[in-house]
Formats: sequence, structure tokens, C-alpha cells
Amino acid sequence: MIGYGFMGRAHSNAFRKVGNFFDLKYQPVLKAACGRDEEKVKAFAARWGYESTETDWHKLIARDDIDAVDVCAPNDQHLKMATAAAKAGKMILCEKPIARTGAEGEKMVAAVEKAGVPNMVWYNYRRVPAVTLAKQLIDEGRLGKIFHYRAKFLQDWTISPELPQGGAGLWRLDAKAAGSGVTGDLLAHCIDTALWLNGNINTVSAMTETFIKQRTHTLTGKVQKVSIDDACAFLARFQNGSLATFESTRYARGHKALYTFEINGEKASIAWDLHDLHRLEYFDHGIEGKLRGWQSIHVTDAGGDHPYMDKWWVPGLQIGYEHSFVHQVADFINSLGTKKPASPTFKDALETQYVCDAVLKSGKTGRWEKVKHVK
Amino acid sequence: MIGYGFMGRAHSNAFRKVGNFFDLKYQPVLKAACGRDEEKVKAFAARWGYESTETDWHKLIARDDIDAVDVCAPNDQHLKMATAAAKAGKMILCEKPIARTGAEGEKMVAAVEKAGVPNMVWYNYRRVPAVTLAKQLIDEGRLGKIFHYRAKFLQDWTISPELPQGGAGLWRLDAKAAGSGVTGDLLAHCIDTALWLNGNINTVSAMTETFIKQRTHTLTGKVQKVSIDDACAFLARFQNGSLATFESTRYARGHKALYTFEINGEKASIAWDLHDLHRLEYFDHGIEGKLRGWQSIHVTDAGGDHPYMDKWWVPGLQIGYEHSFVHQVADFINSLGTKKPASPTFKDALETQYVCDAVLKSGKTGRWEKVKHVK
Amino acid sequence: MIGYGFMGRAHSNAFRKVGNFFDLKYQPVLKAACGRDEEKVKAFAARWGYESTETDWHKLIARDDIDAVDVCAPNDQHLKMATAAAKAGKMILCEKPIARTGAEGEKMVAAVEKAGVPNMVWYNYRRVPAVTLAKQLIDEGRLGKIFHYRAKFLQDWTISPELPQGGAGLWRLDAKAAGSGVTGDLLAHCIDTALWLNGNINTVSAMTETFIKQRTHTLTGKVQKVSIDDACAFLARFQNGSLATFESTRYARGHKALYTFEINGEKASIAWDLHDLHRLEYFDHGIEGKLRGWQSIHVTDAGGDHPYMDKWWVPGLQIGYEHSFVHQVADFINSLGTKKPASPTFKDALETQYVCDAVLKSGKTGRWEKVKHVK
Amino acid sequence: MIGYGFMGRAHSNAFRKVGNFFDLKYQPVLKAACGRDEEKVKAFAARWGYESTETDWHKLIARDDIDAVDVCAPNDQHLKMATAAAKAGKMILCEKPIARTGAEGEKMVAAVEKAGVPNMVWYNYRRVPAVTLAKQLIDEGRLGKIFHYRAKFLQDWTISPELPQGGAGLWRLDAKAAGSGVTGDLLAHCIDTALWLNGNINTVSAMTETFIKQRTHTLTGKVQKVSIDDACAFLARFQNGSLATFESTRYARGHKALYTFEINGEKASIAWDLHDLHRLEYFDHGIEGKLRGWQSIHVTDAGGDHPYMDKWWVPGLQIGYEHSFVHQVADFINSLGTKKPASPTFKDALETQYVCDAVLKSGKTGRWEKVKHVK
Repeated sequence: MIGYGFMGRAHSNAFRKVGNFFDLKYQPVLKAACGRDEEKVKAFAARWGYESTETDWHKLIARDDIDAVDVCAPNDQHLKMATAAAKAGKMILCEKPIARTGAEGEKMVAAVEKAGVPNMVWYNYRRVPAVTLAKQLIDEGRLGKIFHYRAKFLQDWTISPELPQGGAGLWRLDAKAAGSGVTGDLLAHCIDTALWLNGNINTVSAMTETFIKQRTHTLTGKVQKVSIDDACAFLARFQNGSLATFESTRYARGHKALYTFEINGEKASIAWDLHDLHRLEYFDHGIEGKLRGWQSIHVTDAGGDHPYMDKWWVPGLQIGYEHSFVHQVADFINSLGTKKPASPTFKDALETQYVCDAVLKSGKTGRWEKVKHVK
Repeated sequence: MIGYGFMGRAHSNAFRKVGNFFDLKYQPVLKAACGRDEEKVKAFAARWGYESTETDWHKLIARDDIDAVDVCAPNDQHLKMATAAAKAGKMILCEKPIARTGAEGEKMVAAVEKAGVPNMVWYNYRRVPAVTLAKQLIDEGRLGKIFHYRAKFLQDWTISPELPQGGAGLWRLDAKAAGSGVTGDLLAHCIDTALWLNGNINTVSAMTETFIKQRTHTLTGKVQKVSIDDACAFLARFQNGSLATFESTRYARGHKALYTFEINGEKASIAWDLHDLHRLEYFDHGIEGKLRGWQSIHVTDAGGDHPYMDKWWVPGLQIGYEHSFVHQVADFINSLGTKKPASPTFKDALETQYVCDAVLKSGKTGRWEKVKHVK
Repeated sequence: MIGYGFMGRAHSNAFRKVGNFFDLKYQPVLKAACGRDEEKVKAFAARWGYESTETDWHKLIARDDIDAVDVCAPNDQHLKMATAAAKAGKMILCEKPIARTGAEGEKMVAAVEKAGVPNMVWYNYRRVPAVTLAKQLIDEGRLGKIFHYRAKFLQDWTISPELPQGGAGLWRLDAKAAGSGVTGDLLAHCIDTALWLNGNINTVSAMTETFIKQRTHTLTGKVQKVSIDDACAFLARFQNGSLATFESTRYARGHKALYTFEINGEKASIAWDLHDLHRLEYFDHGIEGKLRGWQSIHVTDAGGDHPYMDKWWVPGLQIGYEHSFVHQVADFINSLGTKKPASPTFKDALETQYVCDAVLKSGKTGRWEKVKHVK
Repeated sequence: MIGYGFMGRAHSNAFRKVGNFFDLKYQPVLKAACGRDEEKVKAFAARWGYESTETDWHKLIARDDIDAVDVCAPNDQHLKMATAAAKAGKMILCEKPIARTGAEGEKMVAAVEKAGVPNMVWYNYRRVPAVTLAKQLIDEGRLGKIFHYRAKFLQDWTISPELPQGGAGLWRLDAKAAGSGVTGDLLAHCIDTALWLNGNINTVSAMTETFIKQRTHTLTGKVQKVSIDDACAFLARFQNGSLATFESTRYARGHKALYTFEINGEKASIAWDLHDLHRLEYFDHGIEGKLRGWQSIHVTDAGGDHPYMDKWWVPGLQIGYEHSFVHQVADFINSLGTKKPASPTFKDALETQYVCDAVLKSGKTGRWEKVKHVK
């Protein structure tokens, strides 16, 4: 495990508890935690039960007793860590987005393909049971021809101009570390789900904005230009002919982490919302006219009806955000040795990155831009 | 029309507009408005287009040019007005509850039966399209055996001890004029719907409370004991074996007129809420397991699917509270000359009154009380 | 009244009942209904109480006993009818959108300004009490600096390829009669509200689509190309620096008339939804942290708190779609003779039309387009 | 740990992960799991990391290396296990309800008091952050005088007459093992929360029903009389003068585990719902009239505003059912050695049991019954 921040905790929790709930081919063993601050990484390791610590990630990767590396460092570290880990023959689980740009992502894909190592990117929302159920319903053809897709990821935590950029916890406001603002941080989630549910995107037209132009930088102590996108909205056309709107911002007062998507098909529609992640809204036009309405499905059935839920509690009892990571670990481990790698692989995540690249480019050119596709 | 208060306006509006939207056997003509205050009744008549006014209801009833009398006076006036009108051979539309007590109601039923005049009580919520749809679904057997019924009518407008009792608008706090408090005013609505949807109630066990013991009386200017029930809750057993809870209060902060009911059957459940009266919530257990959820039916379809809605606008556009009265007038007029009187008749309303009587009695005795039934 | 379709009914209802609920400077008198089909217009006049009928609108406009003309004919008729009525010195109430294009609208504005006649366009949603309340809150500065605006108007009634275009009720699918598809029909509503609440729009980037390319034309009986936009989404930048997304379609399964808007400010956010039009969602960041949440305001208070609601019933009891027209008539009548005309005037509606024009142009050019502004 | 069923898993998960998220005085060590089926208990111990197993609970209690015993056996086992554990000087965490009857509970209270051992009953819903927040708001006096309390716990899993009673997982339908039906299983939760939030209950009037009179017994293979209450509703009066309704059933189609409560005070109201357990609905009458509405508080703020949430993720990201147990363990451990034991203690749980006893008695007598109080 490289990194001991928010994602370091979320992933560690998943590794620790997955075996209590899922039958696994292999049991994960927490061999080592790695971070630059020795004191902090030792405290983290102690809390989570890692057997050892490292302060230099090169040393971690060089160790023979380690089979898999989890990259939870900021985005600008992904390329070098993942390629080194691939070279060392380690399995790699990399935090999303895959990298700052498609160009970086391409090198990472090349590295894991050359090394032939299992790889995955932590787009965890695919494994929220309600979202997985949405995927099932679409794959079963229940929606028919798709007309519309719309997704948003709204937050409000950067409205204050007093908030600094850069450094621990705030590197997401620093374009150099993060690559971009809401596009790579939040829209990447929306795009990953969209590509999974609705296929590839061909073209996009975007609008980006940085509302607060300057912020103190934590590392330099100086007031510096903010280079990330505070907000980004884009129009898109999918390969299947459907139309889409996407929007993300950190300036939507009242929304903490409101990731929502809706998909409208000829025969049915689906909607989901991260603030009530255990529910899926479903409209089935096949139901008798007078009874038709949006069904609020409480995706908590243990009897086999709802994905992953037979592993948890009894119907009606919610699981939460952290469980999506547990599911992802379970799927990753149980996919090992099979011909079907757990998604999203580095390649899948690269396709998402290409969309992000096109969006950021369109935000600058003011034109519709074509999306490059993974071969 | 006797009375020019809240209900006088609601009914007048219904009489005036019903012909614009419904095909009617007979067109209502607003012949006369009657009230004790000459100035006020004249202003009311002018605003609503009544051809004439009266200040003595006996004179109104004596007039030959009047076929139907609408009683919108306080509850203590219902018995004398309705029996006189019946004697005079008028059709009678009486505001709910039918009277202060079952004993009064019995005399009213006897009077209209002896006179053979069409009669109806304004339990308007039966004609909210979502409620009418609920009735249809139950009658079609979609719920199967019924296990539970629960209803509430919550308000918060009498919490202030400064609010006086008695007089215009406030006679509802005066037991002499109103007969009872929330039981006759609000629970009567819940009971009427319940009997209509789920059949007769056999036994009840109730609890009543008067939170504010004394209030200034508007008519006397003195601080007097409050004799109405501020709150009332009761348990009930229906003839069909189902169990029920009912509750009403004017001390539920945050609720303006929250009339809700829910009914749970073996195969399906239904819920409704006056604060969003154009929606019916429906749970169909027959739907495939993974898709089951409460369907929020937006009861606004004009294409014939939803009761009464083909008369109004286009799908998605709400009607409101006042339209339930329009529907009731349409049904009343078009039932004239048929063998099936528009419900609820005086007789239907008497059954509701018997439940109220048993509830109020149980509130005093602390025992389960049997409900008398209309023969 | 010219026209006896859906809007003819909605406006007639408003004229008939406004005086029952509002104190007016002048009472509207229903002098004449006008339509090409004599039988139908006579039936319409009889049902609604119009004193006379005309089958030629030129004759209607020529009549001396008529002070105001209400244009409820298809969009391609607005220009000629309104300019003729202006020339004849009549007040004009015109159905929205003002016309098929800004160029037509400019001529109409010129005509009413030259004639000096009161004029208004029926963008009725401004007078839904929850929307009017939103306007009040914004004008009181409660939201602070605005960052985001988003609006949608989703329907699903044209998904079937069997649905024909053209003729009564279906002229909305015929570009010649309607000018455009969802842009003029639905987005125009969203834009009118947006300009009213958030000021002018400077630039737009749009995407339009016609999903069903050919439909039988009711008037010709032939299968013809469909020229309207079935769906349209656009990005926009307001003059106040805020960013917006707008979307409309008639292919969103599960949505009947889902007009929604949301506005995010530094201090508060507001959201509204036509499917529950009596509610306003409000998020006040000024509330203590642990208690903050979206407040669901049931905009039904009669005590003076909620716009227009003191004219109707008691708290908790909904009004519906039709009441927005009643409010508009009341405001129009009571603005006569004052220096502040009731909004939206022809001029206001022209600004909306300019946005529509820019949106449709951008849909073709694929570029960001500037919005022309009313001088 | 005695027992390896649903609760055995929920508690084990809490013990295992509490130290990862909370700073604890003592770290729990999973010494031994105990169950009668050796194979099953070994598998359970392996999965959860228990160091050893026992098949005889007497042996477990006799072990010196064990400081605390968690009783997760059916209700009829609580008395003997807890009293033995107390005698052996162990801390005791006992699954709810404390026992089958108040008489049993009294002996358990006596045992732990005599032994002076820390003790707690697993009424976990007190530690759902939204419920804990409700408690804070009430203790801060924000609701003012309380008028009403209402709670329900609705399920639908026993509607099928094919469902057997007795044995693993189904002992909840067997009155001998469970003591009662929904009263001890579900209403006990409602009562525990109610006493905690609103003080003691004085009197109750109840109605109970067994809809399915006979079911096959898993252990005997015979069709036997069902002695539990399938449904129970009761009216109650609290010591503080407020009125209450409580209801529970396993025959409410459409509800999986719908535990809801609402409390109406003079100044504010609160509502909560287990199906969306991360939200608290709050109505503050102190807010300006036109803005008042139910606030939907998403109780997920990490910044110190919301109870327990600073230990988990970032704002907007839900935790679930299982976390309430983690919180309870954290509170229990950190209360050790202080003068304030973590609630609910055996004594607190006995008060709940007394209410259950009075309810079940009233269900039989049909009279209002007084509730015995813990001294």
C-alpha cells in the first residue's frame, strides 16, 4: 500500500474485511504500508495491521514478499509507480484516475501489458449494488434503445476563497499534482460508469471555469494562480446514438457528494444518486398505464436478487460507501487466474482518460472534440 | 348555499366550474346565498355570482325556485337545516361530518329517507384522483387479503395558547358548535375513506387529550374550559380481520394538513398523502424480486388511465384540492335519476359518525368499544 | 379568444375564475371566441360562457366591443394576429413562445410599442407560487453570488414512431407551424424562468437531435421528414458569470412534464420541479452546520407568507397547474394603468426568443453562439 | 462470543474493525467463539479470526483468558448465560431484548449488580448517527415541550403460510425461544429508542394478532399452533405528558425493515427512518415563515458536526447498518473505568422489557395497563 490518506484507509478497510464476508481464492495479507513520513506511516500500519513499513516506494516495489501494489498516491505519482511495479512483476491496483493525461495512461497500459500483470483502477462506484443492478438491467435489454444519459457530480467544499491549494488533502486543487480539477476527480467517475453502462463516447463539447482565480499554496505559502477547473459541464454523443449531458462542480451549495446518473431508454429508465446509494429508481413503461411510476428499489435483498447483498445482512439494512471497495477487492481476487480480468482494467480506465482529455481540450478550444479510443 | 366561509367558497367554486369541464345532465344555477350577516352575504353572492341572498335560512328553504340546498354551516346547525330542507323536498348536500353525534345523524337519515330526496355529505377526499384510483385497485382485488390499515391527519395550527376558541373560523375549537375536536373534524375524513376502502370497523380503543385546557372564547370574551379533543389516537379492528391505527392532532409541528393512509395487503400495498395529493404510492409484490419497489404514480394521465383526469389538462400537470369538490358535484348531478346515488350518502356518513361516537366514548371509558352499524 | 385547444381552455378557465378569488380593477368579460371550425367554436363558447363566436379572426379584431385579444393559435399565426390586433388598438395576451423566430418577435414588439397597447406573453410558470417565491428569495439577496443554473424539461410522449405530425394537437411536431421542436415548446419555458431569475444569457453551445426522422403528416397523409428538434441540450454562460446547463426532450421515458430548475449560490441553493409544483426545495448554508439540509417548503401558506396563496384555501392544501394562469390574469389586469406592466411583456419574451435562436443556430454550427439582446 | 448467526457476524465485524477507526482504551481480542455445532463454530471462528472455539458455553465462561462475554444466543438462553457469566466476573454484552420477560430481566440485573461487572444490551439503533443527533437536539431543548411520539417497525417476511417456525433463523417465530413475536423482536427497538429520547412510559393499551394460526415446526416436523404475536400496535402515555402510537408487524407488504420514529415538540419536530438511516428529517418552527420546511439532514459530515462521522469518510458518503455496532463497541470500551457506563445497560433494557410486558398483557386483557418501572 503506497499512501495513507483517505483512499489508503478505504482500501485497507476493504482488504481487511473482504475475507469475513466473501469466499476468496486468495486471502490478502497486509505486508507493508509505504509513505514518506515515517511517523505517520508507522501509525497507519499499526492501526490497520500492516506487518511492516517503508518510506521509499522503490524499496517497497523491490521486495520479494509482495505480490500486489496498491497505488494511493496523488495522480502525478501514478505513472512512475505503476510502471516500476509492472516492471517488477507486481499486480497493480491503482487509484483513479489512471493518470493526469491519456499520454501518461498509455504508458501505464503498455507497461502492464508488457509485464502481463493483473491490473485494476479503483473506480469503485461500479460495485455499489444499485449501480451493478443497473448494469444488469441494461445488459438484459430492459431499457431498449437508449436516447439519453445524464450525470452530475456536485460538491460544495471549495466555495470559500480562504481554502488553500496544494499539500496533504488539498493536492486536488493543484493542477500539477492532480492533472485537472473536477474533470479528473469527479467527472472521471461519471464517465467511467457511463462508458460501462452505455458504451463509448464519440464527441464532446465542454465548458470549464475556475471561479476562484488565486489561492494560497500550502507548500509555498504564496498566493498562486489556481489552474484546475472548479467546474466543468459537457455535452456528448455516444456511439449508440444517445445524447448526454455531464456536469461537475465544487460550487453547488447543498451538495456534499451528489453523484447522480439517469439513463432513458425506449422501454425503461433508470436513475441513481450517491446520497442514497442503496436505492435504484426504475421506471418500467411495460407496466399497465394506470400503475406506472418510478419504482424506488431498496437494493438490500439478501436472497440473491441484488448483487453482492447475499454477503451482508438482511433485507432493508443498508450497506454504505466503503462496501464498494470490498466488492472490488473480492472481484479482483476471484478473477485472478481466469480469462476475464476484473474491470475496470488500466485499459478501461485509459478510455475514460481519453474522454477527460477531449473534455479539457474542448473547454479550451470551444469546439466539439473527438474522443480518442483505446485500441 | 347556506354559509359563506371556507367551505362556502370551495363548494361555490365547484358549482361554477363543473360545467366547464364535465358533461352534466343538469347545469347547476346559483340561485341564492344565505348567511346571517347581510353585508357579508351580499358581498359573497356578488363575488360568486349568486342571483340573490337571504339572511334567514328558513326563507331560503321555503323558496320554490330552489331545488337543492348546500349546508355549509357549523356542525350544530346540520340537523335542523337538513331536516327542514328534507321536509321541503329539497335535495341536500351537507358539509361533513354529518352532525355532532350519531343520534343527530340518525334523525337526518330518517328525514331524507322519509322525504325521498337525493342527499350527500361532502367527504371530498374520495374524489381526489389518487384516492379514487386506490379504491379501483382494491376493488379489482389487487391487494388480496388485507392485514393493516393506518391513517393519520396531522396539523399544527392550535399549538399557541393565545389562540381563542369560538366564533367565525374558530368554532372548530368549541365543542358545543363542533361536537368534538379532531375526531369530527379530521379523523372523520380518515374514517370515511377507510370504510369506503376497507369496509366496516367493529371495535375501537381510543386515547384523547386536550393539551391546552383553557382558552379565551371569542364570543364571550372570557377564558373558558376547552372541551374538544386536541388530539385523538385509536386502535381498531375491521370486519375483514385487518388491524388499524388512526391518529389525529393539531399539535404536530411541521404538518399543515398531513392526511395520510396506508393499506397493506397480501399481494400489494398502497399509500397516499394529502400534501402530495396527486401521487399514489403502490407496492406490487407480483413484480420480479430484484425490481420490486414502491411505485410513485403521478396520477395525472389524461388518456383514460386515471380517474377524472381526462377532464383536465395533459399528463404531468397537477390538479389540486379544489378539484375534489368539482368531481363530487359532477358525480352527484350525474347520479340523479339513476338507481345508484353518489356516495357518501347521509347513510354512509352516519356509519362514519358511529365510529366517531365509539372513539370518543372509548377515549372516556378507557375500554374497547363496539361500533354501532347503520341498518 | 382566438383558439379553443388546450390553451384556449386553460386561459378561459383563468378569465372565468380570477374574479372569484382576486380583487380586480376590471372584471374580464368573455365577449367572443374565435376559431375556424364553426361547430367546434360554438360548442367551446357555450361551455365557457363566451357571448358570441367568430370564425374569422380579422372580424374579431375589427369588433369595437372587444378590448383585449388572447392569441392561442399555433406559433406561425402569432405574428400576423398580434400585429393586426395591435394596429386595432387591442391589448394583447399572446401564447408562448412569442413567435417562431426572433425576427418575427421583433416585428411584434415594434407593433405593440407603436400602438402603445398593454401586452403579455403566457409564460405561466413565473406565477406558480413556489417559483414566485424563488424569485423573491433571489431578489432579497439570499443566494449571494450565483455559480450555477441548471434546468430540464423532460417528456416522453413522442417516443412511438407511429405518432403522426401536423394537424390539431400535433402541430407541435411540425416545424412550419411550431418554428422548432422542444426548443420553442419546452426550453422556452426554462429560458424565460432563467432570465427572470438569473439575468441575461451571453453565449450558448447546443446539441440537437431528431430521433424519428420521418412521420406521417396528418394534413397530407404522407410520410414526411420531421424537421423539429426532438431533443436539445445546451451549455450557457450568464452575464453574471454563472454557468448553466439546459436540456429538453420528448424521449425521456418516465417523465410526463418534468420541468425542473436548480440554482446554486454562494449562500443558498434553490430547486423546483413541476411534478410537485407546490414545493420549493431550499438549502440555506447559513443554518448551523449539524442541522443544514434541503428544506422542502410546502408553498401553501395562506397567512401572507407565500405568494398568491392568501387567495386560495388553507395551509397544506395544494393548488395546481391552472392557477398559474389565474395569477397571470390577475397581475395583468391589476397592472393596467400603472407604470409597471405585468411581465413577461412581448419585449421580455423576445429576449427568450433570441436565446432560442442562438441555441438552434449553435445546434447547426456546432460552435458557441452569442445571444442577441433586446435593446 | 456465544452464537454465530446474524448477530454473531454483526458483532464480530464490530469488534474486528472498531480499532481501525476509533481510538480505544483497550483493543478487543477475539479469544473464542462458542456454538453447539462444532463444524460450524470452527468455520465461523476461522472466518472471523477467533483464536479458539468451544461447543459448551459453560466452558467458555469458565476460561480465565476471557474478560467479556457476548451473548448472541436466542432469548431463552440470555438469563442463564448472563447470570453465569456475571458470577464468573465477566463483562457482559447481551443481544436484545434482555430476556423473554421482565421477571427474567430482573434476575439478570440483580446478577450483574451483585457481580459489579460492566454490562450492556445491544440496542444498536441508538448509535446510528442520525439517531444520536436526534438525541442531542432533544437534550439541547430544541423541541420544547413534547406532544407526540410515534414509531413503527414494519416488515413483510412472514406473510407466506409456508414459512415454518422454530429452529435456526426461525426461532423468532417460536414463542418458547423468543418470548414473544414482533413485540420483543421489533417493538423492543422502538421502545428502547423512545425511552432514551422521550423518557418513561406510564400506561399502554395494546392490540395483538396472530394472522397465521398454525405453522410447521422445523424441530418437530409437525404443524403446531403459532404462539407469537405477528402484529402488535399500542397507544401509550409518557411521563412527560406526550401521547404515542407504536406499531409493528411482519405483514406489511413492501417494507423490509422500516423502523421509523417521529417526535413532535412545541418548537420543532424530528423524524427518522431505518431505510434511509443516514438522514434525519428536522422541522424547525423558529425559521422564518416563508422558508419553513422539513430539512433533510444528510448526517455524513466529517468535520465534527455529526456524531461518530469524523471517524469515517468524507461528507456525503454513507455508512450503514453495521456501523451502529462499531460505535457501540467503541462507546462500551471507552466507558470502562469511568463512572458513566455505556448505555443501554441491563437496567435500561429492563425498563424496555417492562413496557413489552405491559403491552403483551394489555393485548390479552384489552385494558390500559400500567408499566412497572426499574427502581
